[in-house]
Amino acid sequence: MLKLFEYNWQVRKDWFDWCSTVNEEELLKKRTGGLGYILPTLYHIVAVEYGWICGGIQDKAIEIPPFEEVANLQQIIDFSARCHEELAPFVYEWNDSLEDKIMIDITDEGERVPHKYGEVMRHVIAHEIHHVGQLSVWSREIGLKPVTANLIGRGLFDTVKIHL
Amino acid sequence: MLKLFEYNWQVRKDWFDWCSTVNEEELLKKRTGGLGYILPTLYHIVAVEYGWICGGIQDKAIEIPPFEEVANLQQIIDFSARCHEELAPFVYEWNDSLEDKIMIDITDEGERVPHKYGEVMRHVIAHEIHHVGQLSVWSREIGLKPVTANLIGRGLFDTVKIHL
Repeated sequence: MLKLFEYNWQVRKDWFDWCSTVNEEELLKKRTGGLGYILPTLYHIVAVEYGWICGGIQDKAIEIPPFEEVANLQQIIDFSARCHEELAPFVYEWNDSLEDKIMIDITDEGERVPHKYGEVMRHVIAHEIHHVGQLSVWSREIGLKPVTANLIGRGLFDTVKIHL
Repeated sequence: MLKLFEYNWQVRKDWFDWCSTVNEEELLKKRTGGLGYILPTLYHIVAVEYGWICGGIQDKAIEIPPFEEVANLQQIIDFSARCHEELAPFVYEWNDSLEDKIMIDITDEGERVPHKYGEVMRHVIAHEIHHVGQLSVWSREIGLKPVTANLIGRGLFDTVKIHL
């Protein structure tokens, strides 16, 4: 489980670095598919990971700023770092005994839906990789090489903690 | 590990169903990003999973047909089913004792590169999700709703085997 989170965090950091080489106008230009914009996609990835792990599984009272309050690259990077600091310990301490524990999600319609922790964690992993696939298309639209999505060759299987 | 493979197989089946509602011309039209075409992307997903698991980890003599030999939807579906039948038992029998076993990859340049089985398996998982993110953008370009990428809500945590 941890290795796929570390993969996502490393890839996210690479995308932040990629963003820093791109005109901010491009990061906020309307595009086809997904969330429709590069920077809001990165914001969304962070918010969803934080929301499910700290707000959902850990049932903490969390505050997620609206996008407008963190609407530039540095603020998204800072938002990601703050969320990461709060959620990473849970991920690093993950163990199989947590797999079938149940959290209750309250939907927008007020419905209470139970989910296993293991299901939520995998949802979060797949969610980030999926949206990053969309970034890779938009990157080519701008004429830029996207961040590599390869998991092999990142040194993830010999490394220590990833810092965002 | 298994749950993320099952997620990918279920999503892949949904994309095959999605493809069957789309004009074949659209499936082979050049697009921006990734492999650049919808059907070759699905072929590539299948070939990479099969290549790493059966050819790489299991070190079997495998044959992957060139895309031109399976260049329509039904043939890709059949190719996927054949590969799935051969590789799924390994995934279903996966256990933690396999994590650190080593396979040797021989690169196009003839270099021998060792990889842990656990790294290869996660590479394959992330690889498919990433490319599916690209399909979702192309789907919107055609004006169609993409297959949902949500892992939660697929019943994966109560189901039996997925058949492709």
